[in-house]
Amino acid sequence: MVPKMSLLFYTVRKLINRGATSNLSNMINKLHPADIAQVMQQLGPSDRFFLFGLISDKEKTADVLNELNPPTRSELLDQLDPKKIAEIFKEMSPDDLADIIGDMPKDVANKVLESLGKKDSEQIQELLKYEEDTAGGIMSTHFLALNENITVKEALERIRATSDDMEVSFYLYLIDDFQHLTGIVSFRKLLTSPLDTPLKKMMKTDVISVRVHEDQEDVAKIVERYNILSVPVVDRYNKMVGVVTVDDVIDVIRAETTEDIYKMAGTSHEELFERSTWKVVMMRMPWLLITLIGETCSYLIMRWHRGTLKENIAISFFIPMIMALGGNVGNQSQTIVVRGLATGKIMDTEQWKILFKQIRIGMAMGIIAGILISFFSLIIDSSHHVLALIVGFSLFMSITISGLMGATVPFVLNRFNIDPAVAAGPFITNFNDVVSIFIYLTLATSLIVFLI
Amino acid sequence: MVPKMSLLFYTVRKLINRGATSNLSNMINKLHPADIAQVMQQLGPSDRFFLFGLISDKEKTADVLNELNPPTRSELLDQLDPKKIAEIFKEMSPDDLADIIGDMPKDVANKVLESLGKKDSEQIQELLKYEEDTAGGIMSTHFLALNENITVKEALERIRATSDDMEVSFYLYLIDDFQHLTGIVSFRKLLTSPLDTPLKKMMKTDVISVRVHEDQEDVAKIVERYNILSVPVVDRYNKMVGVVTVDDVIDVIRAETTEDIYKMAGTSHEELFERSTWKVVMMRMPWLLITLIGETCSYLIMRWHRGTLKENIAISFFIPMIMALGGNVGNQSQTIVVRGLATGKIMDTEQWKILFKQIRIGMAMGIIAGILISFFSLIIDSSHHVLALIVGFSLFMSITISGLMGATVPFVLNRFNIDPAVAAGPFITNFNDVVSIFIYLTLATSLIVFLI
Repeated sequence: MVPKMSLLFYTVRKLINRGATSNLSNMINKLHPADIAQVMQQLGPSDRFFLFGLISDKEKTADVLNELNPPTRSELLDQLDPKKIAEIFKEMSPDDLADIIGDMPKDVANKVLESLGKKDSEQIQELLKYEEDTAGGIMSTHFLALNENITVKEALERIRATSDDMEVSFYLYLIDDFQHLTGIVSFRKLLTSPLDTPLKKMMKTDVISVRVHEDQEDVAKIVERYNILSVPVVDRYNKMVGVVTVDDVIDVIRAETTEDIYKMAGTSHEELFERSTWKVVMMRMPWLLITLIGETCSYLIMRWHRGTLKENIAISFFIPMIMALGGNVGNQSQTIVVRGLATGKIMDTEQWKILFKQIRIGMAMGIIAGILISFFSLIIDSSHHVLALIVGFSLFMSITISGLMGATVPFVLNRFNIDPAVAAGPFITNFNDVVSIFIYLTLATSLIVFLI
Repeated sequence: MVPKMSLLFYTVRKLINRGATSNLSNMINKLHPADIAQVMQQLGPSDRFFLFGLISDKEKTADVLNELNPPTRSELLDQLDPKKIAEIFKEMSPDDLADIIGDMPKDVANKVLESLGKKDSEQIQELLKYEEDTAGGIMSTHFLALNENITVKEALERIRATSDDMEVSFYLYLIDDFQHLTGIVSFRKLLTSPLDTPLKKMMKTDVISVRVHEDQEDVAKIVERYNILSVPVVDRYNKMVGVVTVDDVIDVIRAETTEDIYKMAGTSHEELFERSTWKVVMMRMPWLLITLIGETCSYLIMRWHRGTLKENIAISFFIPMIMALGGNVGNQSQTIVVRGLATGKIMDTEQWKILFKQIRIGMAMGIIAGILISFFSLIIDSSHHVLALIVGFSLFMSITISGLMGATVPFVLNRFNIDPAVAAGPFITNFNDVVSIFIYLTLATSLIVFLI
């Protein structure tokens, strides 16, 4: 039922190479637009263009264009005839079009807007005013809202009369004479109520809605928390201006989570679509530089203690181990808190509880790792029993502090409204490295008489 | 409209401490079940129990219980009177109940099943047969499917006659006389078609469905890819057995992504709900041990080259820097590929393209970092110009290899159907540390004559 993507891709490529156009055309026109788009993204520009031309249905062509990722789409649009583009765009809804036009260079966008009808063009320009990552940026404006004063019978007639491309969601939104959102009625209730009931009498009035400038991530959280299939978008006067449906919300959740993951590693999702190596390097450069600066401290600490290291070179052998183990635990604590805050599983009211828990965990892991490393050190070199103690104790300290830092920094950043994902990642790792080396070498230097 | 959670929590706690029961009761009964559950999770056991008792509506009580996270829920159930539990359970749908009963100890579960009606009990036992993380585990069995041979008029009558707790989704599923899924009709189409049309004539027959044992993550991907609001679940004979709705899918997406993030850090989401420090330590222990073993290699490599380190202790100062920078780039490449594979943004057919891209990026970053570190080293200590060259070249090599490893390992694991998220995380970091130190010290030892 659902095609396996790599198989599909290889089949399409084989048919293209063989020039089996009619087979290909048959196959393509049976596929779902999302699958066609996925295959196209893996093809080279000329094959992609060829395949796109084989889609016979105009609506499907529009759907495929809509499903393509932005870089592939703009590449394809450059290859297409302006007349053909205008035809495809006529099949698209204003909110999808606004997304595409928003990605175009200003002059191209203006030309496209001119080629569209006045009404569509105005609606799109209205939509383009909203920031891409707000409720306004992801909402659909083709929604059905009925006046609260009509009856069930009239409502059913209106629904029958709506055109096919109208977004009819699971709920029927009701507005007063001034377009203010006043209530909702489920379709199910509409179907099960007497025909002469006024909608006003049967509607639910505590409607969950979002403001047009609300961050898309907050919109997603609301849809998720309250298990609703669509949420009405209102302006500051509570006038209904659009609807965000749950399929848009899924895309937001995926995109925002992915971005959080990439931020924690010090890069961005844009890397995936970026062809220029240089531009990717520039995206990653900030964290490289921060790491370089951070590790300069490690360098200086080691240099400072060079006398100690020279006296007993075995001290240096444990540095990678202490760094790696501290980093490991710090990263775990940090990940638990950053992700917990992002999903709402950890509330900011639980700060202290979480902190103490992570300290306990850090200390426990520190004790275990400290004992293990002391034994390891004694097995490898039994003459160094003081070094074994120093390594064990330093590791305990550095794991405890790493765990504490990993749990604290995200809360602090969150308090100051800084996204913990972006700032916590490589920073904590760096900090932990420096602290671990500092503790270890300071301890070794103070106890140097026992180490020679 | 949507309450701020921390404010809500503080208000509730204040009202509890003041003993303002009637205010509290008023407030609670106006809140959404999801919000009540969220507040309850932050309260202590006795306050939680007290608050739960204030919810006057039985259906709401059931909804709140359903929204609680499993550990809090089972704690609360332990406090509740069995009679009260039976009352609440009567308000819940079989699939929600199956989830709760599945979490209970066997003997308690059997007692609860006995207290329910025969029909419910059988349905729940049927549901409990499916693995928790499959389509069967997350589907609802209270769905409406109509025979394809009836007319629009008959369909509307049937819908009117269904009970209130039936899950009526956006689509109407049609079955033949043997319960085989044969087509779907949207509610909108039902409302806009002549009353005497047979459903069979107007239904769409290429229905996207999932098998009952299909992994929940694959179900989520299908719902996401095809932008559908619910997907029918069928058994191996194509008989319809349930429906997975998009709100369940959102929960799956959040949970699976969160688990992937935690896996990459070498821990698990269970850590959040686990009160015992010891158990959390056990969850994290495998990666601590793997790191310990991995870094033993680093130790041994350093020990092997102790002569070199002794000759010029300054060589050791650069080890943290080389480790951290290689780790940084390796982690970035790995994150890009692991997440790209998980979201389907990277297809396994693109393996070589992605690999070459990451090598290019790694080399570019390696060159930049290598030059920076050479300069840094010369500025700090101008007498060591050969060391500056060695450090720069080693860093270039180790960043390039880290980038390559970070991109290769996830593809290889994916090929062998091992989840890249679980195995890639700390393993790559470890491997990169060892390789970096190996390259650096081997180079330093071979060029030792220039370093003394």
